[in-house]
Amino acid sequence: MKEKLTIIKVGGKIVEEEETLQRLLTDFAAIPGKKLLVHGGGRSATRLAAQLGIESQMVNGRRITDADTLRVVTMVYGGLVNKNIVAGLQAHGVNALGLTGADMNVIRSHKRPVKDVDYGFVGDVDEVNAEFLGKLISEGVVPVMAPLTHDKQGHLLNTNADTIAGETAKALARLFDVTLTFCFEKKGVLRDENDDDSVIPHLTRTDFDTLVADGIIQGGMIPKLENSFQAISAGVSRVIITQATAIDGTEGTIIAEKE
Amino acid sequence: MKEKLTIIKVGGKIVEEEETLQRLLTDFAAIPGKKLLVHGGGRSATRLAAQLGIESQMVNGRRITDADTLRVVTMVYGGLVNKNIVAGLQAHGVNALGLTGADMNVIRSHKRPVKDVDYGFVGDVDEVNAEFLGKLISEGVVPVMAPLTHDKQGHLLNTNADTIAGETAKALARLFDVTLTFCFEKKGVLRDENDDDSVIPHLTRTDFDTLVADGIIQGGMIPKLENSFQAISAGVSRVIITQATAIDGTEGTIIAEKE
Repeated sequence: MKEKLTIIKVGGKIVEEEETLQRLLTDFAAIPGKKLLVHGGGRSATRLAAQLGIESQMVNGRRITDADTLRVVTMVYGGLVNKNIVAGLQAHGVNALGLTGADMNVIRSHKRPVKDVDYGFVGDVDEVNAEFLGKLISEGVVPVMAPLTHDKQGHLLNTNADTIAGETAKALARLFDVTLTFCFEKKGVLRDENDDDSVIPHLTRTDFDTLVADGIIQGGMIPKLENSFQAISAGVSRVIITQATAIDGTEGTIIAEKE
Repeated sequence: MKEKLTIIKVGGKIVEEEETLQRLLTDFAAIPGKKLLVHGGGRSATRLAAQLGIESQMVNGRRITDADTLRVVTMVYGGLVNKNIVAGLQAHGVNALGLTGADMNVIRSHKRPVKDVDYGFVGDVDEVNAEFLGKLISEGVVPVMAPLTHDKQGHLLNTNADTIAGETAKALARLFDVTLTFCFEKKGVLRDENDDDSVIPHLTRTDFDTLVADGIIQGGMIPKLENSFQAISAGVSRVIITQATAIDGTEGTIIAEKE
């Protein structure tokens, strides 16, 4: 039987404010067994870019990454946010190791081809080095992954943190019994977007298709859930969508069952 | 017999300009066997600080590191400079892993006590985790170390890159036959500071004491050499002081012999 591995993805907001960061570090440290953290950092990147006179341009929720913006996200994601989390986890006795995709070549990507939109230095993932990551995890190291990858030709590339979490979970599912938890602002997938307590506890693909057809699940939640079902199809044992204050997996929407 | 390990320390200037960085990456990639790189990044930190309206204050060649400056050096050293080197080395087939002292707790330090000067968030090294580093190196990983440490209580601390290199070399000398190369602007320790070709090829402690007494070695070279002799005393096989364009060890001043 494979050993359990918990992968938690948290957005920028959680890790950028001291109070929510400290709560996250405590909660994450309390998760038993093998684990891995993926973080964002978009708000800090936008703030630093503004201070440097660089305009942040978003298309479909993704950051257009020119050369100056790449420098900003490399500083913020790879440096400021990542290393503060690592130092914070070390204080909690968690043997954290901060990684971008370039480190030990853990995530190789290619620059997204220009179609309707030129996203600039944005990477689409080609390969996650599950062997290296798995070895570190087995030795008790807790990877803390920044949303940056590289093309193995010397270029760092900005890569969506949800994608990093999903691809890493899929790759590591070969080696571990993986639970992937996406943290966002709400308690889970809601049946009524105006009622925070209307969390759907279990969601199957059939449920999902019905709820989308009925217009109950819509907008940005659709790609997040498509991503989740893909992870399940690729061997991830369980995907949970919940709040950062509930990373112990006791709340939220569980996307687990296959038909 | 211990396996050979080459530790190279390069200053900020080399890694911050595209041309010298590319040359360094090529030269470093060509070094055979186990290796480790320590880098600075002070010029980029000073530039970013200025752009953000933060004044860079230096005392005895060391940066006074207040909270805002710590954010700047965490971004520049831990993010921008470190990850660009890592991605660049990966393109040369070197399995680089960027590290601060917080990552896997490789270098623990304490905040420098305030005496004549309050250096702020500056760390004096307590311990280098040679076991972890040695294990990675033995597995073919090439650590790329940023000049940041942590206190294991959640705080990153700014730490001089020469110190990181010296302390890491001393700790790893228990496991490897270590050559430590400090790169700086000159070809080596000069007998005549106005003659770039007056490099002293070998320097013993007795030579050093005589040259200091005669006023030939002076200024910032004295602590650099004291540091080098300390490394030799602590078991480092060889210390070389040379230019970044000569990291193959064929030029420069070799500080090796014990009386």
